[in-house]
Amino acid sequence: MKRILVEELKNKIGEGVKLKGWVQRVRKLGKIAFIILRDRSGAVQCVVNTKEIDIKGLKLESVVEIVGQVAKNDKIELQVESLNIISEVKEDLPIEINKAELEANLDTILNNRVLSLRHEKTNAVFKIQGCLAQGFGEFLKEEGFTQVFTPKIVAAGAEGGTEVFELKYFEQKAYLAQSPQFYKQMMVGAGYERVFEIGHVYRAEEHNTNRHLNEYVSLDFEMGFIEDEKDVMDMETRLLKSMLSKIKVECEKELKLLEAEIPEIGEEIPSIPLPEVIKILKEEYGKEDLVKDIDPEGERLISKYVKEKYDSDFVFLTHYSVEKRPMYTMPAENGVTHSFDLIFRGLEITTGGQRIHNYEMLKENMELKGLNPESFQEYLQVFKYGMPPHGGLAIGLERLTAQLLGFKNVREATLFPRDRDRLTP
Amino acid sequence: MKRILVEELKNKIGEGVKLKGWVQRVRKLGKIAFIILRDRSGAVQCVVNTKEIDIKGLKLESVVEIVGQVAKNDKIELQVESLNIISEVKEDLPIEINKAELEANLDTILNNRVLSLRHEKTNAVFKIQGCLAQGFGEFLKEEGFTQVFTPKIVAAGAEGGTEVFELKYFEQKAYLAQSPQFYKQMMVGAGYERVFEIGHVYRAEEHNTNRHLNEYVSLDFEMGFIEDEKDVMDMETRLLKSMLSKIKVECEKELKLLEAEIPEIGEEIPSIPLPEVIKILKEEYGKEDLVKDIDPEGERLISKYVKEKYDSDFVFLTHYSVEKRPMYTMPAENGVTHSFDLIFRGLEITTGGQRIHNYEMLKENMELKGLNPESFQEYLQVFKYGMPPHGGLAIGLERLTAQLLGFKNVREATLFPRDRDRLTP
Repeated sequence: MKRILVEELKNKIGEGVKLKGWVQRVRKLGKIAFIILRDRSGAVQCVVNTKEIDIKGLKLESVVEIVGQVAKNDKIELQVESLNIISEVKEDLPIEINKAELEANLDTILNNRVLSLRHEKTNAVFKIQGCLAQGFGEFLKEEGFTQVFTPKIVAAGAEGGTEVFELKYFEQKAYLAQSPQFYKQMMVGAGYERVFEIGHVYRAEEHNTNRHLNEYVSLDFEMGFIEDEKDVMDMETRLLKSMLSKIKVECEKELKLLEAEIPEIGEEIPSIPLPEVIKILKEEYGKEDLVKDIDPEGERLISKYVKEKYDSDFVFLTHYSVEKRPMYTMPAENGVTHSFDLIFRGLEITTGGQRIHNYEMLKENMELKGLNPESFQEYLQVFKYGMPPHGGLAIGLERLTAQLLGFKNVREATLFPRDRDRLTP
Repeated sequence: MKRILVEELKNKIGEGVKLKGWVQRVRKLGKIAFIILRDRSGAVQCVVNTKEIDIKGLKLESVVEIVGQVAKNDKIELQVESLNIISEVKEDLPIEINKAELEANLDTILNNRVLSLRHEKTNAVFKIQGCLAQGFGEFLKEEGFTQVFTPKIVAAGAEGGTEVFELKYFEQKAYLAQSPQFYKQMMVGAGYERVFEIGHVYRAEEHNTNRHLNEYVSLDFEMGFIEDEKDVMDMETRLLKSMLSKIKVECEKELKLLEAEIPEIGEEIPSIPLPEVIKILKEEYGKEDLVKDIDPEGERLISKYVKEKYDSDFVFLTHYSVEKRPMYTMPAENGVTHSFDLIFRGLEITTGGQRIHNYEMLKENMELKGLNPESFQEYLQVFKYGMPPHGGLAIGLERLTAQLLGFKNVREATLFPRDRDRLTP
């Protein structure tokens, strides 16, 4: 008999079937025992006559094979005819995973990652995350983007920053890429015009906050022949709509389980210039400490404001000043740039904008930022041979997932987080 | 007027349009000039009256905007009304990219990667590669797999090997993951049962061959509740069929340009036990130097044999001996294992098999291999809490692409290769 999944039982009522999975719960009632069997598709109650089938040694989370008849009373259940243990549990479980909520602190959850992921709520998080990543690629493919894989071992810190991990690469020093920024721009210039990448990036940031990771998945795209950053913002708006629609359909069960509220995105996401944001925060919330930039508290407050005023969970912040943006950012008039951030429910999930495509302007901008163009020869060279106007962005996959599901700590949306203190499991 | 793509011209005959792209070629004939304009979708001839439009300063590979009327004679062409340079070329091109073939050696091609990718044949390679990666994910998603992202910064060399890159992780030493092997197995045990990952892996191999890279993209999957390695081989057979069908449709133009022959896969890929392979190679080709393993020459010869005998471009080699396989490989009878390689046109592109799911067996096998189970605590622990029988495989994306397109060197199918000598661009 071929194994079927729990989710297939509804089409098998009255039939004999074989299930395989984990023993989630066991409850004994006289001569009858009720076993909850869980597989990747769901869980079902299995009714065992303990006079016929001995389940004395059966431990929670053992892997078993159960053959039985599918019955439907209030719910679908299985009348067990045989039960075999495929893989035993050797030790008591270090955490309890068969309650409605996983009651453990985040450190314990992460230390026991494999077991914590067996809890259906924790498990659901990463099904949604996988689906978001696929949705990102599917939408962009339809829009004429090419998926690329650019190196993560690089000869120099990508953007001239200092927060890079150093690596011994045979006789040379190398670094882990902080972003695919230079490479994706190069791919625009290589004739692909539109590229995306889904890959890890690395930030050797010393501080350990609930919004930072030292290794995370960056959803990057870059597109050529744009007018300005608004083309990028428009693409992101449509992209997010598409990704959210996809998970609504494909992860309906998981989203319900996590009581996730999927935000609605209208025709446009509200967009506010940063100087105006600072004014609003001052006038509406008495926040006085912002100069030319926003801080985490500011992100939360402007989200609150936009939610109340425009009923939007997203807001684009634009008109960041030249000082606050990297050297490749296209300047606009009056000391601001053609760049933006996207704030989602109080947290920045995207930085993007138009890039400089003119060789001289890029070189001058490097110098203005105190960088030596000599150090960026490989990158800079590309701009000598016909580079279209272009722009792009990066979305942090873990942050997007965390905000969507209402987590306070981005680690809850990271399978195996890497931070200042955590390098295992 | 909105920019359209070259591929859209066929629906615009007799209309006025705007194109943007690169100047691929310029040919002057008296008062007329013919410009080949290239964008991400293709190239078109644009006819310019040089008495009206001055193109004297126009350099090859400049980025231009052309407005004109679409005409159809033998082919579709554009009668140019205006031409504006969007982005100039500052220096002579270091390589010639407007000939039918890119005539440069591989080192020059890779040193000038962005320009070499503008050559339509080189460009096509990575469109196909992106499509293969997406096809991998799409098929597995349909088969109930979850996409995961596991860490590439790890506390120990994944499989106890020595060929790892060492990293300074704050106060600790860390390493770059050689494969997601342990993590994908853990995800099976975490209840996902079926997972896949598309990500970079790192091998600090000292030797510089045409089949090795120090950083490459690994297409990994792992599946639970299998009978043995044949379930994995069957999944790979259907996966490859699906990926090849996808590129046949979506990359028809690129495959034609590269004169790629897409292999046919029948109901089953031929499968030969390694001892028999060794016998065949001895009897058929006089190859006498193989003991319990195969070498590159052997891979080429057995492919030749299978092509002639079964008309297959693929062959599974099975029954590898215990000594030749990693400690997590499920042993079978008589000193062999439940593992396999897949050879495609003379090159191994996949290693896979069933894994050990029993805690004691895994621990013993580590000791048999001279490894200390203490060093694998995080991994080993998972096997104490109910681990289903499982197996999986990894496909090297660059190798698959290279073999499909008939390249001799895997670097031709790598955007920015990292090897013993190459860390840039």
